[in-house]
Amino acid sequence: MPTPATRLHRHPERGRYDRETLYAILDEAPFCHVGFVAEGRPFVVPTIHARHGDVLYFHGSPASRMLRQLKQGFDCCVTATLLDGLVLARSAFNHSMNYRSAMVLGRAVEVTEPDERQLAFATIVDHVARGRWDDCRWPTAREAKATSILRLPIEEFSSKVRGGPPKDAEDDLGLPHWAGVLPLGLVAGEPEPSPDLEPGIAVPAYIEEYER
Amino acid sequence: MPTPATRLHRHPERGRYDRETLYAILDEAPFCHVGFVAEGRPFVVPTIHARHGDVLYFHGSPASRMLRQLKQGFDCCVTATLLDGLVLARSAFNHSMNYRSAMVLGRAVEVTEPDERQLAFATIVDHVARGRWDDCRWPTAREAKATSILRLPIEEFSSKVRGGPPKDAEDDLGLPHWAGVLPLGLVAGEPEPSPDLEPGIAVPAYIEEYER
Repeated sequence: MPTPATRLHRHPERGRYDRETLYAILDEAPFCHVGFVAEGRPFVVPTIHARHGDVLYFHGSPASRMLRQLKQGFDCCVTATLLDGLVLARSAFNHSMNYRSAMVLGRAVEVTEPDERQLAFATIVDHVARGRWDDCRWPTAREAKATSILRLPIEEFSSKVRGGPPKDAEDDLGLPHWAGVLPLGLVAGEPEPSPDLEPGIAVPAYIEEYER
Repeated sequence: MPTPATRLHRHPERGRYDRETLYAILDEAPFCHVGFVAEGRPFVVPTIHARHGDVLYFHGSPASRMLRQLKQGFDCCVTATLLDGLVLARSAFNHSMNYRSAMVLGRAVEVTEPDERQLAFATIVDHVARGRWDDCRWPTAREAKATSILRLPIEEFSSKVRGGPPKDAEDDLGLPHWAGVLPLGLVAGEPEPSPDLEPGIAVPAYIEEYER
């Protein structure tokens, strides 16, 4: 259900308030932008998120501005957006983009319980590349200590989705300008092995066949 | 020059404080995320931006929450991020992403002068697809009225850039896990003409050869 804070005022037909739509966007987006207020000013910072059930996890250095603020229990807004295409209408006014955007509002809290911290680490690594957690060295106690994990319950949220062709006014349909959609998507290139990679280690299937 | 608000605390080696780096990111990013505070809470909203010289323009409906807030002179934070790849280290701890992120802080003001408004419309349309402004119908007086244009001077800003291979500790180099970078980039597909497009209008070159 939308709240006063999440209900779309502009283009209400693009609003979605179900978890299925939200979770599909959050899971497909490789990273998100986190907004928070520090010393009265808004900040927006890109970061890696990962969803587990009805919870979002983030991580970061305890020294970062973002995590210093969030640990104090500041409100935050997590927005993840996938660009699907450019929408070219005959009229400048009706130009748009096709996109899917997920927004979660709430108060993030620090995760301190060791089992949940380990779960969050695994969820974040597998969010980057599914299958990677079982194919990497897990954090040592010292490394774990150097990482803050935050939990944001997914309670207040909305999605915005625009798809399909441009919508020009009847009067403009005869204009001589091309109109349509140019699809855009995130595509993986050839994996680049690290210069210090030991010989004989093949590119794993979850990277070779990577798709989001 | 970094300010207390823009100086990077975490990974200071990723910080860039020059306009050239910032402008290249802002110009390449198709859209950005705008952060602002409304009723004491942070919001992060995706929107199309466009740079003209040392100024950022945005547009939107005067009815949207974002523009209602910004018109009152609220501080905002514009962040545009380009994802360049996944960084897979042997250790979970050193996993990362290659990215370029630009952040501009400041107070946006509404543009009311007709010539600057027209310039902003043109800059925004050409930001979506360079060359499109000269190949579309320009806004009518009624359409122009339905669009708020905001100007954010680029005065307080920073960029964050991570590139190159993973950085594992010496002790981890012999581990049997693949390490390297999986490049990612935004790629255009086949243009999809609008179902109501008049026959005989070819896909323009700036769409056929679109690259960001």
